[in-house]
Amino acid sequence: MTSPISQFAAPEYAEVAFYEAIGRGDLKTLMSVWSEEEEVVCVHPTGQRMRGLQEVREGWQSVLTQGLRVSVTPLHRWQTMVMAVHLVQETLYVGDDQTPHGPLFSTNVYMRGAHGWRLVSHHSTAAIDAEHAIADQRILH
Amino acid sequence: MTSPISQFAAPEYAEVAFYEAIGRGDLKTLMSVWSEEEEVVCVHPTGQRMRGLQEVREGWQSVLTQGLRVSVTPLHRWQTMVMAVHLVQETLYVGDDQTPHGPLFSTNVYMRGAHGWRLVSHHSTAAIDAEHAIADQRILH
Repeated sequence: MTSPISQFAAPEYAEVAFYEAIGRGDLKTLMSVWSEEEEVVCVHPTGQRMRGLQEVREGWQSVLTQGLRVSVTPLHRWQTMVMAVHLVQETLYVGDDQTPHGPLFSTNVYMRGAHGWRLVSHHSTAAIDAEHAIADQRILH
Repeated sequence: MTSPISQFAAPEYAEVAFYEAIGRGDLKTLMSVWSEEEEVVCVHPTGQRMRGLQEVREGWQSVLTQGLRVSVTPLHRWQTMVMAVHLVQETLYVGDDQTPHGPLFSTNVYMRGAHGWRLVSHHSTAAIDAEHAIADQRILH
């Protein structure tokens, strides 16, 4: 059964839901962003690759225990009718601590299916890009 | 002027040309794989982001001086009519040394334009995935 929350009309909505779910530690909503029709893969900044919804869920379950919040800066977008790729910069905060961690670069791949736009791949890695980071600064939430 | 070498009829051909060009230290062919119509971005395993053809070229120019060869293992593909995303695993060799380095995970994004399929994004990072790496082992070249 698909929850109404996962009917994303644009990849941007799926992206916002994804990062907001991380900030709330909401694994159920986070998983509702991933495609159930396409193969899904998540490469964490540790270099670990999670394949399929079950591995992806297990990977995020352990990440969410850290109580992360994520500030997201869109960097690049490539979009077609049924597929979109977003490169974003993520700055992480742990719990209530205001110390920024990262930044990370993430390539998020979305596909449009029967239930709207869904995430099929999230590839996230440590960035060294301080100069560009400042120039591009635009916090999504 | 576009060279005939860059008329790739499928993203797979662009991918082979890209990695073979790295192996030959052939910057001209490597650059012919990148799109001239779309914004291009390259995130190197160092965490550096190169934006636009000129920065991408400069980034690869310094990489190619290392005399790398790359063995590529396709891991996942998502393809639509005009956009394709490939997650691959790369194993690097320096010069004639048979010692493998890496592996890396790379998310390669291709778009089909007026001159066939071209690379628009290459996001490459250190992997820790020894178990999957062995299971998936299939060397492209």
